[in-house]
Amino acid sequence: MKGSAGAILLQLQEKVGYPYTLLTPDMYRWGAGGGASWGTLCGTLAGAANMINLVVPAADVPKLVGELFGWYSSTALPTMNHESYAKFPNKTQSIAGNPLCHASVSNWCAASGFRETDEERLNRCAMLAGDVAAKAIELLNSYHAKNFTPAYKVSAETAKCQGCHVGKTSMLGNTLTNMDCAPCHPNAHKK
Amino acid sequence: MKGSAGAILLQLQEKVGYPYTLLTPDMYRWGAGGGASWGTLCGTLAGAANMINLVVPAADVPKLVGELFGWYSSTALPTMNHESYAKFPNKTQSIAGNPLCHASVSNWCAASGFRETDEERLNRCAMLAGDVAAKAIELLNSYHAKNFTPAYKVSAETAKCQGCHVGKTSMLGNTLTNMDCAPCHPNAHKK
Repeated sequence: MKGSAGAILLQLQEKVGYPYTLLTPDMYRWGAGGGASWGTLCGTLAGAANMINLVVPAADVPKLVGELFGWYSSTALPTMNHESYAKFPNKTQSIAGNPLCHASVSNWCAASGFRETDEERLNRCAMLAGDVAAKAIELLNSYHAKNFTPAYKVSAETAKCQGCHVGKTSMLGNTLTNMDCAPCHPNAHKK
Repeated sequence: MKGSAGAILLQLQEKVGYPYTLLTPDMYRWGAGGGASWGTLCGTLAGAANMINLVVPAADVPKLVGELFGWYSSTALPTMNHESYAKFPNKTQSIAGNPLCHASVSNWCAASGFRETDEERLNRCAMLAGDVAAKAIELLNSYHAKNFTPAYKVSAETAKCQGCHVGKTSMLGNTLTNMDCAPCHPNAHKK
């Protein structure tokens, strides 16, 4: 969390200055390990979302944060952009499927064969923090250049679930999420 | 998110003043609906965690944030402490089972019969924001009075899962979470 928030905040401090100089990356440490190692929202996303909130009008914050969450959920990460300085070369990319630290880490462990406690996993999440900060800055730049267009769409399978379960006009509007349904509800309507 | 962060931040501004007067609750809006309505970490927790991070040394932040997450996951909410001012009386309490907005909202919708889009649901989450802010302040007060003791323990069932899946000495340390396993992995080891 501190990594992604800091990567953006330090740029704001260098290029804009006040009021961003009033803040410090150390304000954004609680999200590590998906929040106190609980594995909820990935800390890199929590850090970047806090930064997006600082520089975008309130009504547009969910558009950019939602796009960042969607990109994170559906992209093979970490990217290969860290080879010149990463401690370990990036041999394994994986797709989290949702913005949760737990899914992101476990999918990568399954794909790479490493344990969550291995130094390679810490290195992987450090690379991810860089990728998320870079993507957030890309979205912010396109937003401020007035050419931001949301690209992320939920999967066809999840869209079908949402037809009944999400929204004001749905039959059974008991749900508020954009996360893919099937990974946690594999047996829905199959009992 | 803004509700719980603001409830704590305004107290810090009134009772302590600087440097908290440099901040505004509007910095903490991205977490609404579990982050841009994605249903990840409950925004009331993200708001409170940002505040805990401001007033506790970094090494102790996870202890308090983790305790808050555990309390939220296992407590029937909202409390009945809002009856004198809430728009709708609190007729339904539910237990989220984890710190995720999606689980919290859907469990409450199932228990209450309301839709996620109903005004009663918004009222419910507003009460929850008050409860989370109050609990965070209770934890912070006990911490600063030097009598904070973490009380939350994962369920026996989840502790059994963690025995193999979480931690450096585990057989298969591929997981980083304290969330209950069974709700999303009902068929683990049963295939």
